[in-house]
Amino acid sequence: MKNTITSIQSFCKEKGFVFPNSLIYGGLSGVWDFGPLGIELKNNIKSSWWNFFVNSSENIIGMESSILSKKQIWDASGHTQNFVDAIIKCKKCKSNYRADHLINDILKIPTDNLDLNELNELIKKQNIKCQKCKGDLDKAKPFNLLFQTKIGPEQSKESIAIMRPETAQLIFTNFKLIQNTTRKKLPFGIAQIGSAYRNEISPRNFLFRCREFEQMEIEFFIDKNDEKCRLEYTKDKKEITQMLNQKILVYTADMQEKNKKEQELDFNYLIKNKIIKQEYIAYWIWQYYVWLNKIGIDLKKLRIREHTKQELSHYSVQTFDIEYNFPFGFKEIIGVADRGNYDLSQHQKFSGQKQEILNNNEKKIIPYCIEPSCGIGRIILTLLFDNLETFKDKQGQDYTIFHLKPFIAPVKIAVLPLIKKLSTKAREVYKKLLNQNICIQYDEAGSIGRRYARQDEIGTPYCRYFFNYIAGIVVYYACLFCKQQCSVF
Amino acid sequence: MKNTITSIQSFCKEKGFVFPNSLIYGGLSGVWDFGPLGIELKNNIKSSWWNFFVNSSENIIGMESSILSKKQIWDASGHTQNFVDAIIKCKKCKSNYRADHLINDILKIPTDNLDLNELNELIKKQNIKCQKCKGDLDKAKPFNLLFQTKIGPEQSKESIAIMRPETAQLIFTNFKLIQNTTRKKLPFGIAQIGSAYRNEISPRNFLFRCREFEQMEIEFFIDKNDEKCRLEYTKDKKEITQMLNQKILVYTADMQEKNKKEQELDFNYLIKNKIIKQEYIAYWIWQYYVWLNKIGIDLKKLRIREHTKQELSHYSVQTFDIEYNFPFGFKEIIGVADRGNYDLSQHQKFSGQKQEILNNNEKKIIPYCIEPSCGIGRIILTLLFDNLETFKDKQGQDYTIFHLKPFIAPVKIAVLPLIKKLSTKAREVYKKLLNQNICIQYDEAGSIGRRYARQDEIGTPYCRYFFNYIAGIVVYYACLFCKQQCSVF
Repeated sequence: MKNTITSIQSFCKEKGFVFPNSLIYGGLSGVWDFGPLGIELKNNIKSSWWNFFVNSSENIIGMESSILSKKQIWDASGHTQNFVDAIIKCKKCKSNYRADHLINDILKIPTDNLDLNELNELIKKQNIKCQKCKGDLDKAKPFNLLFQTKIGPEQSKESIAIMRPETAQLIFTNFKLIQNTTRKKLPFGIAQIGSAYRNEISPRNFLFRCREFEQMEIEFFIDKNDEKCRLEYTKDKKEITQMLNQKILVYTADMQEKNKKEQELDFNYLIKNKIIKQEYIAYWIWQYYVWLNKIGIDLKKLRIREHTKQELSHYSVQTFDIEYNFPFGFKEIIGVADRGNYDLSQHQKFSGQKQEILNNNEKKIIPYCIEPSCGIGRIILTLLFDNLETFKDKQGQDYTIFHLKPFIAPVKIAVLPLIKKLSTKAREVYKKLLNQNICIQYDEAGSIGRRYARQDEIGTPYCRYFFNYIAGIVVYYACLFCKQQCSVF
Repeated sequence: MKNTITSIQSFCKEKGFVFPNSLIYGGLSGVWDFGPLGIELKNNIKSSWWNFFVNSSENIIGMESSILSKKQIWDASGHTQNFVDAIIKCKKCKSNYRADHLINDILKIPTDNLDLNELNELIKKQNIKCQKCKGDLDKAKPFNLLFQTKIGPEQSKESIAIMRPETAQLIFTNFKLIQNTTRKKLPFGIAQIGSAYRNEISPRNFLFRCREFEQMEIEFFIDKNDEKCRLEYTKDKKEITQMLNQKILVYTADMQEKNKKEQELDFNYLIKNKIIKQEYIAYWIWQYYVWLNKIGIDLKKLRIREHTKQELSHYSVQTFDIEYNFPFGFKEIIGVADRGNYDLSQHQKFSGQKQEILNNNEKKIIPYCIEPSCGIGRIILTLLFDNLETFKDKQGQDYTIFHLKPFIAPVKIAVLPLIKKLSTKAREVYKKLLNQNICIQYDEAGSIGRRYARQDEIGTPYCRYFFNYIAGIVVYYACLFCKQQCSVF
């Protein structure tokens, strides 16, 4: 049976992965809470990411900034000015829509590139009405997505604080402090995991577009005129060769403009033909392909799509999205952007504090920055769509298996006594397995088949139960992967 | 040399543990960012806590809620009404003070118990003036500590969302969903790690009193009339005996009222004499003593202090703080509160949604709740004060050692080539040690003594360097603890 957003969302609620926030008060749209299984899954993804991208790397270091920050940061970055979507209101029933989404839903045409005037023209020309009451729509207007609050006892203009819409800017504002304390030389990266806040007009598709969501970002700083910052200088030949030979599905800005289909190409071709202009964009896309494969996502369902000129963010030189083929289409799960040195330059200008560091030739420069950025919610959603399998079993009942790599699975081991009278012994085994720093469950309620099914649904790799009591404590486990039963004690 | 808040704060900034947020724009008071070492330390503390309290426990499960939530939650919990401090303003220079702190600073008397009238009377009677301009002070007024923002495109009363001032309430609002999905029977607990937000009038003492801070909380649900919920039913005899024999320094409400000194007593005495009214309050205090000892905090510098009647939160039946003896006095690092069934009852009343579950006798009840609550920032501050040692070395220079348990230390291993010509081989060792899911540093800059000193300062347990090149790759390490040098490869 095919997974849909609705089926995935109710699975998550029923099993304790994800609940709507403030549900007993009617819910808060676009905001979600993680249940007992959801938090274990999320923590496993976060530590896998941190180990892969930060601790296994020679030149990436971590940090964590607060969520509240001064408004000046967002003035400098351009967010207070440019971080807007087009909102459109029904004149009759006062419903609000995000204009580009509304047009895309109705006309099925791409709308990422359209500006306010173009959106308004299309709505007029195509005579688009309110989807709820069929009333006339007002003109689309810009709507700023920043959440703000006031800090301190004085409620003045100076007391405005912003809830960060991205973790990136706090990396930039801490850039000099971190370079000073770590004495890192270019190229190096600073990584951060943490929540971000965007006041979406119409949050939708469950964890895909939320008002509160968690990011995993790296800002990778280079000197684009320095040979020592080149990929070939900092990475092993073997690693680079592996990358160059990797084939991926590519959808360039040019292909989109000329209405061509996406094409399978290797990184060697993409770099040589300057389709990817900055080799570190290629490198980070490739690193993400390696990591996504590691956590169990089917690379065949991915493509990279270049942002078209109209669609590029105000700071970006070139951006590629890694997109997954969801039932609602290819959608971004990771973005890899060349931000140039826009951000650090802006902060230098607005704060009056020099953001330059010494490059490898002892010259002062403001480094350039490549940013691979990933949303954890979207990774979880991708894992669900890619690995949650529901089929009819022999009895014609729905049976669900969540195929998860053991290191990602929320519950590692379940202890299930085969029959009730083995409970005491089974609990002893369970208690022995506690204190191992892993999440483990004990379950003696219902039939053994039902208990197995429960563990299959949540992706537990190892279900252990007592098989032979007379012969002493013999524990067998049935492994989801090898389908065999083996003794462990 | 003695640690002070100022010396600790500059150590943290200089080494990359903690930076003031938005520093290039003048800083945001009471908000801090964690640098490369700070985030590793914090992550280690968080996973140690999660392993100890959640994954090693039979009846504690985790969750994670969002930071934004509906205002109704905080109406029900009493926060929109009662979550206030007394603010006092200078009539002349308009400086703001937190009234109880101001009086405490000047008169050196405890002020936790005083209400608004008492604060105002004291200020009048003692003729307390503005500390900056000596101007007259206005009357103290209540000031609500909640941060609020507006969500969605409509800026109406309904669109108010609160940034949670504690993680606890979101555990209560998800209580039924979690009990349903996990099918847990009483007693059981729900744990959460996450940020909380309080608009403090005068944040101070570095990580001690912040506007944005991270909590680690458990809400432990019991049926107080059920034998099966008793400690002796759910815990091993051995564990209970260990607890009962533990001696701790105790400062009861009675001792405070009668101006007596704190006393060393064991849990057996405290429970038998009903000084601790709920045995789970004793259990959780003891569990925290075990955990604090595990992460390397000197238990001799702790005491538990009971909240006096006037000081008790509106929801609390009895509360004990675990306090650490900081240079600025004994201060709370952990609170263990008996919240009764106030919170779930309030949510049932305000939401109209039943919050009852079946107890072990199949009767519907609203469970009672014991809450051990801990701030990560305060744990980090305690670790710093307790383990950061600065002394004069033989050359009369300041030398600092951060004594950290290896599993808590931010950097696990440093590879330091003894001399420059060993760099290539040393880097090979370093690269071999990457991919081990630990944080590791390579350093070849400066003298070997200086490099060792740098690692001592940040608490790195193992510094490895090349000792003998001719005999092949022989790596020795000097351990901070055993002070010996041993070969590892």
